[in-house]
Amino acid sequence: MTTNKITELLNIKYPIIQGGMVWVSGAKLAAAVSNAGGLGLIGAGSMKPPLLKEHIMKAQTLTSKPFGINVPLLYEGSLDQINCALDLGVTIFFTSAGSPSKVTKMLKDKGATVIHVTSSPALALKCQDAGVDAVVAEGFEAGGHNGRDELTTMVLIPQVREKISIPLIAAGGFSTGRSIHAALILGADAVQMGTRFLMTKESSAHDNFKQYALKATFQSTKLLMKKTVPVRLLENIFSKEIEEIEASFIKDELKEKIISHLGKSRAKHGMLEGNIEQGELEIGQIISHIKSIPSVEEVMQEIILDFNQSLARSFIKF
Amino acid sequence: MTTNKITELLNIKYPIIQGGMVWVSGAKLAAAVSNAGGLGLIGAGSMKPPLLKEHIMKAQTLTSKPFGINVPLLYEGSLDQINCALDLGVTIFFTSAGSPSKVTKMLKDKGATVIHVTSSPALALKCQDAGVDAVVAEGFEAGGHNGRDELTTMVLIPQVREKISIPLIAAGGFSTGRSIHAALILGADAVQMGTRFLMTKESSAHDNFKQYALKATFQSTKLLMKKTVPVRLLENIFSKEIEEIEASFIKDELKEKIISHLGKSRAKHGMLEGNIEQGELEIGQIISHIKSIPSVEEVMQEIILDFNQSLARSFIKF
Repeated sequence: MTTNKITELLNIKYPIIQGGMVWVSGAKLAAAVSNAGGLGLIGAGSMKPPLLKEHIMKAQTLTSKPFGINVPLLYEGSLDQINCALDLGVTIFFTSAGSPSKVTKMLKDKGATVIHVTSSPALALKCQDAGVDAVVAEGFEAGGHNGRDELTTMVLIPQVREKISIPLIAAGGFSTGRSIHAALILGADAVQMGTRFLMTKESSAHDNFKQYALKATFQSTKLLMKKTVPVRLLENIFSKEIEEIEASFIKDELKEKIISHLGKSRAKHGMLEGNIEQGELEIGQIISHIKSIPSVEEVMQEIILDFNQSLARSFIKF
Repeated sequence: MTTNKITELLNIKYPIIQGGMVWVSGAKLAAAVSNAGGLGLIGAGSMKPPLLKEHIMKAQTLTSKPFGINVPLLYEGSLDQINCALDLGVTIFFTSAGSPSKVTKMLKDKGATVIHVTSSPALALKCQDAGVDAVVAEGFEAGGHNGRDELTTMVLIPQVREKISIPLIAAGGFSTGRSIHAALILGADAVQMGTRFLMTKESSAHDNFKQYALKATFQSTKLLMKKTVPVRLLENIFSKEIEEIEASFIKDELKEKIISHLGKSRAKHGMLEGNIEQGELEIGQIISHIKSIPSVEEVMQEIILDFNQSLARSFIKF
């Protein structure tokens, strides 16, 4: 019987992290996940410090359990977000989209727990060297912004496990208890799930987006904008326009056309405001396996039941 | 304790299939895998009937265990290949790259076992409806020719499992015993591995190719030629030229340039003849996790040991 390094590190009941999602994971979702025994993360990427402060303070009233924030380091102002959270007593930081050496030492010196998101075994090792407490390794199937290496979760997790000795959180393609069991078999200590928690009552994804995502088939997501910033999107008019641009232009002209067509606030329009035709709808491949919008508590109980049932199954020894 | 439907269906010891690979899996590799307790497959895709006949007859002298052939149905002459194998007493057919309804009834009427390769839950259901005995579901991480849907093994397998009631073989990303354990947890009854068996003494991949593949990093494969026939290749001068063409042309002109640059016999030059600069080197993402070229028997024993050790590990129930 192995102990669980992630539940111990984060002082949570279940080895389940709710991925930070711009426009989707505010105080309400993060607190619900933490109250249900996982770790909730406020997705700070879409929040300026005053709004982030509001969400952190609200989450503190909604739960007495640990929660954290996710900070994409590539945005201007990420340091302001971090300082805002530190001032309010947040002690768990998931950093992504940038160098792990940028803020890890500063955060560790202040006593915080730091976990960095990676998409390759080599970067995972750099994270460990930078002094993080754990790593999230995220496969090609994950939603939203995605690494360039396109390693899938099945290929990525065992190789990251062999590179690092610190705890490992698997991400990309998870929505069930048995898939969490598979992740542990592959060497992870926990999983991070975004899409499964996006599809809950408590997420701040617009109901138009949730209802539209319920109809997704196995052909409904694509990794697009590889020549700018790769992102996995739910198919809609906007995503088809992007595909058409990608099929029609080359090199610098392609980049310009993509950036210009993307414009500003596409993700907000789509995910928060519910413009399902022209908005940018970030979502993972596993959406085709999700056919309900329950409460976070219901999701968590179903997953834990499925996990325990999976543990109880036995297979022929060969 | 569940029984294993695939070992029973195919009358083999271990739930491990060696994927049929053009230019790589002839009589020697297929017989070695069958002798080691798995199911070997002769990759008929690259063989005209006289050569296929030679390989089948040679395999029959090298093993008394069951083996099969893999037939991509898109090639002209696939029916000649099938008839050649039937005449020689082959009873196990893995069909791919074409409609499962094309040959399944004819083969079943002759008493053969038919297994079709798919890359989506919807096609898996069509396979079951067409009367196949089992399905191989192959994820985005797999080597060589690949589906257009880009579903990864982690996302694909549980959804195929829910669509069909017949036995299921998972493919794409497997090379270790613990990954086979994970596949069973996700709902598969067995795995098919190509790249792991390509990297053995008995495969007919040229030694130049094997030695070059040993140096692969996690960035060394890419799914290319998506506008013609998607194929996962090991990076070399040829693959970089293809990438440059893909970045430089659009639509019909792109297709023409790809087809013209590909020319004839690229795969043979690369994989069988060892031209590692200008040949087409088909390989799976998991190559970055493979650091040895052992015998098939050694591979199999190591995998089974790892599988049994994985079964014996226990995790905290939550």
